[in-house]
Amino acid sequence: MKMSMRTFLFLSLLTAVAFTTEASVVDFCVADPSLPNGPAGFSCKNPSQVVAKDFFYSLAAKGNTDNVFRSMVTPAFAPVFAGVNGLGISFARVDIEVRGVVPFHTHPGASEIILVTQGIIKVGFVASSDNRVYIQTLRNGDIFVFPQGLLHFQINIGKIPAVVYASFGSDNPRIQIVDSAWFQNDLPTPIVANTTLLAIREVKRLKKLFGGTN
Amino acid sequence: MKMSMRTFLFLSLLTAVAFTTEASVVDFCVADPSLPNGPAGFSCKNPSQVVAKDFFYSLAAKGNTDNVFRSMVTPAFAPVFAGVNGLGISFARVDIEVRGVVPFHTHPGASEIILVTQGIIKVGFVASSDNRVYIQTLRNGDIFVFPQGLLHFQINIGKIPAVVYASFGSDNPRIQIVDSAWFQNDLPTPIVANTTLLAIREVKRLKKLFGGTN
Amino acid sequence: MKMSMRTFLFLSLLTAVAFTTEASVVDFCVADPSLPNGPAGFSCKNPSQVVAKDFFYSLAAKGNTDNVFRSMVTPAFAPVFAGVNGLGISFARVDIEVRGVVPFHTHPGASEIILVTQGIIKVGFVASSDNRVYIQTLRNGDIFVFPQGLLHFQINIGKIPAVVYASFGSDNPRIQIVDSAWFQNDLPTPIVANTTLLAIREVKRLKKLFGGTN
Amino acid sequence: MKMSMRTFLFLSLLTAVAFTTEASVVDFCVADPSLPNGPAGFSCKNPSQVVAKDFFYSLAAKGNTDNVFRSMVTPAFAPVFAGVNGLGISFARVDIEVRGVVPFHTHPGASEIILVTQGIIKVGFVASSDNRVYIQTLRNGDIFVFPQGLLHFQINIGKIPAVVYASFGSDNPRIQIVDSAWFQNDLPTPIVANTTLLAIREVKRLKKLFGGTN
Amino acid sequence: MKMSMRTFLFLSLLTAVAFTTEASVVDFCVADPSLPNGPAGFSCKNPSQVVAKDFFYSLAAKGNTDNVFRSMVTPAFAPVFAGVNGLGISFARVDIEVRGVVPFHTHPGASEIILVTQGIIKVGFVASSDNRVYIQTLRNGDIFVFPQGLLHFQINIGKIPAVVYASFGSDNPRIQIVDSAWFQNDLPTPIVANTTLLAIREVKRLKKLFGGTN
Amino acid sequence: MKMSMRTFLFLSLLTAVAFTTEASVVDFCVADPSLPNGPAGFSCKNPSQVVAKDFFYSLAAKGNTDNVFRSMVTPAFAPVFAGVNGLGISFARVDIEVRGVVPFHTHPGASEIILVTQGIIKVGFVASSDNRVYIQTLRNGDIFVFPQGLLHFQINIGKIPAVVYASFGSDNPRIQIVDSAWFQNDLPTPIVANTTLLAIREVKRLKKLFGGTN
Repeated sequence: MKMSMRTFLFLSLLTAVAFTTEASVVDFCVADPSLPNGPAGFSCKNPSQVVAKDFFYSLAAKGNTDNVFRSMVTPAFAPVFAGVNGLGISFARVDIEVRGVVPFHTHPGASEIILVTQGIIKVGFVASSDNRVYIQTLRNGDIFVFPQGLLHFQINIGKIPAVVYASFGSDNPRIQIVDSAWFQNDLPTPIVANTTLLAIREVKRLKKLFGGTN
Repeated sequence: MKMSMRTFLFLSLLTAVAFTTEASVVDFCVADPSLPNGPAGFSCKNPSQVVAKDFFYSLAAKGNTDNVFRSMVTPAFAPVFAGVNGLGISFARVDIEVRGVVPFHTHPGASEIILVTQGIIKVGFVASSDNRVYIQTLRNGDIFVFPQGLLHFQINIGKIPAVVYASFGSDNPRIQIVDSAWFQNDLPTPIVANTTLLAIREVKRLKKLFGGTN
Repeated sequence: MKMSMRTFLFLSLLTAVAFTTEASVVDFCVADPSLPNGPAGFSCKNPSQVVAKDFFYSLAAKGNTDNVFRSMVTPAFAPVFAGVNGLGISFARVDIEVRGVVPFHTHPGASEIILVTQGIIKVGFVASSDNRVYIQTLRNGDIFVFPQGLLHFQINIGKIPAVVYASFGSDNPRIQIVDSAWFQNDLPTPIVANTTLLAIREVKRLKKLFGGTN
Repeated sequence: MKMSMRTFLFLSLLTAVAFTTEASVVDFCVADPSLPNGPAGFSCKNPSQVVAKDFFYSLAAKGNTDNVFRSMVTPAFAPVFAGVNGLGISFARVDIEVRGVVPFHTHPGASEIILVTQGIIKVGFVASSDNRVYIQTLRNGDIFVFPQGLLHFQINIGKIPAVVYASFGSDNPRIQIVDSAWFQNDLPTPIVANTTLLAIREVKRLKKLFGGTN
Repeated sequence: MKMSMRTFLFLSLLTAVAFTTEASVVDFCVADPSLPNGPAGFSCKNPSQVVAKDFFYSLAAKGNTDNVFRSMVTPAFAPVFAGVNGLGISFARVDIEVRGVVPFHTHPGASEIILVTQGIIKVGFVASSDNRVYIQTLRNGDIFVFPQGLLHFQINIGKIPAVVYASFGSDNPRIQIVDSAWFQNDLPTPIVANTTLLAIREVKRLKKLFGGTN
Repeated sequence: MKMSMRTFLFLSLLTAVAFTTEASVVDFCVADPSLPNGPAGFSCKNPSQVVAKDFFYSLAAKGNTDNVFRSMVTPAFAPVFAGVNGLGISFARVDIEVRGVVPFHTHPGASEIILVTQGIIKVGFVASSDNRVYIQTLRNGDIFVFPQGLLHFQINIGKIPAVVYASFGSDNPRIQIVDSAWFQNDLPTPIVANTTLLAIREVKRLKKLFGGTN
């Protein structure tokens, strides 16, 4: 049949093109952490090895909240969720116990939208221009956006554990918790005190709480 | 007291800077649809009028799924969720009844991560390089990423209505449903048939179903 | 002569700088497919091995149009045209026989400008917001822009074979043909039917035509 | 019929969404030069006024080459081709008479691919790192890429007028001709001479040729 | 003379092109704060009104350091330095008295390079991944880069006032000082205490120092 | 103590997260030139090997100005200043003797802000749209911005050597000096003459001065 012959040729030629393309930068770049990485992310896994599971991640499990903040962030960023590498987005699950908080932090260079799927939380961020505070109470099905790079927090103000999902405009948004940056390392106490105006004694107390030294 | 005097001066000067900055491009650009828009999005609402509610949106309500696909996408994109304007991310809620589907579509230029919060769905996308299909079953708490611009679908394969939340790497990712592009307008039937190889009769049937003409 | 001595020194010093720079990221990044690739494209060929031919590609030859659509796209994308790697643009030649078509397709994430150099074609794209169709007839020397990611097509409506050149805002824009995505793979027929509302029989007919299975 | 009722509802709801979207940033941003422009380009024309012609431009007419270089560049950049505004690509036609040239110039911040459709030309660009020159001869159907921002030229070395089409990775790539920058304005002759080491007399001769002063 | 006639035509035609271009998006987009702004920055001042002074700013004057930190940052960001609008870079001057500090802060979404032109300072930033601290001493002529969005500080450790210049990879990088975000507004003391683990008393002391309430 | 136990767990869990992250794309990507590079820059040095010195560079030393322009640019671009790799900014020092100049040049694709720290200079750039010249005199503490990709120059018009620092919106902005591109290589004299309209004799004189051939 002439039609199917034409089709055959068309398909073969298409396949030829596809083959050339397949061997290179294609529709996705699933991370292969065994290769060098660069400013744009991880090197790509060989496309022929990519499977549907690479684009899948489970955030069904509750994080371990048995810590001082009574909360846990479980990230699905490029280092653990290979399928988002190079795609500029990622996700996380946040569990917050009753009276727990997600402490003040930033995501350097990424905006964030959160979705509440259980409980009631109060969230807020601070603008840099005038230090104005934007605070909102969120319930199941509500979303809220934190503009890029600004300090923000979440507090469980309800009577049950809160479950929150967060999406980011970066495949590796990172999390910088101010307390950790100041107290959970060997940054000398006098430097912390001088550059924050916190009392030396308070710095020492928090260094102890967070396992910092110096 | 000398210290508080210094503080006073410091704060005044800081305020001066903040004031200058406040009157211009700042930490966010909440959409003001009454002003001209441009390639980067909507013009910014006067910062002094911005309130916390601008960064809030509720996707708590189930969408109306009484349609042929038995599903509904409720978008929280920049045109309705002013707070995400210019931030490069957005969100949506997807309701899919039992045996309902989200038909094959693309988001021109945006990658997407979905989260299942109720039910069981089967999702898939097709790579452009070799037409390979990546299919996965998702349950509560699972996430899946659809790489930028590729054709994809969702099917409720469970016994209860599915609730899915979607996040996007664009503040206005748009949705192009293939059926709608082909059958829900006045694109002439012969053009559809010739450029898709669908039978004329099938095109006519679907044009009728989707309210298209010609 | 003092002047030439100064010149000599200036040139030596300039050369020193150039040498340092040459060994690294420079004016271009010609693809070396033998090295790992990443989200931004292929790794760069050693600059000292780069020659003028790397920036050259010939699209003088007509593509083989002996297929069901009576057309052929010959891409000059980064996987075959190494010189465009990382530069964010690429090119292609499109041959369309009399009554031939370029079937409905998208370029995930790239806008496209086409130029007709022979024949008369009818082109169109569909907006996602309202499914409105934009159709235009093009002759020799005419150009037309397809906005990023939208479904579009081309039809030869003239009496001679059409020759069209296409430029893209990506060095690897890729081509997703809807027919190929639905019918030229092992995507199960019931899934195609359910997510497109095409009749099972029509899906089967097209799967056969395009060499798909399931 | 129940099916069509569902369809009707689905379509109405879809239309509602589309309506909201249509009133804002959508699939394209056709330039409206009567409104303010910004760093990302022109403001968008009201979508309801957009027609297929906005995405069309004719470069069928030969440019007027009756000038000192015996060539003419006819741009289809955003200021004249409203449809490319915000899409990051544009086009131009270049006519070069026998023995004519396109003088040394740059496109600040845009890479370029050219296609020869008539005649034979010699093209070249200079790398910044080591001043190495990359020269190539091009014939009908050949393409060549000039990496972003580098000095380049074209020369008609054939026996008939050359026709070249150029595509760019910017919707307003601009053209900076070195001769024009140095000699076609009121930049003082001593400044030109000192910052180029050209002889004063030569600068004066070329200022006269290009209509410059001072 | 034939040559000058050709030249005349060439120049006229060039002028025609230039005229078209001049009326639109051109080589720069000097901010006009009286027009609407958008996600990409301010609207552009009419090009015909632009003068060399628009690209000039003086940071010759020492900032007023009579405040609690004994330092002052004088920004040359887009809101005050109109010429950088849309160009993605900006500058600032930093004056730090003996024993003065620039307190811990971030620039949401911008990397920064500083240059010391007087005095000796100690600078540091904290990585988000492991809270590791990178500290360096800088003298006249030394530069240091703070990666995007990370918490950092500067301390004058010399015997004379330090003068530092800072450049940024954004035309409006903004400055978020942690102390100001926590203590210089009406963010309720219990929220600050809970989300930082600082003692209530310490929060109150610092709120008083910074003029905060609640 | 229960609190410290919680803290311990929190810290351990945080550490676990940090560990995962640390092994991948993190807060910076210090260049490792021994690995392949790509369009986005150099591959990243192993984070565990990164030290504070990687973010430091000294531009305290005066460049050797004993050359025909009596000036020297000392770059701190990614190839030599590994810490800026991928961060999109870089720096340079420019020394200009009395009556010395920085010749006409461009930075392909990067805007630049300069700061004068000693002496008096005259700077200027030429717009591409209308060849208009923007000239300004700068003294100690003054800054000036050169918009992306445009031809510009600097002249020491004072009585002492000038010291200028330059910042760029690219981590490898490169420098293309027109004289070097035309005269400091083997670009044939007839090509230079034809594409610039410079007299053959002048081209030969400058080729000799710059060490070019052909």
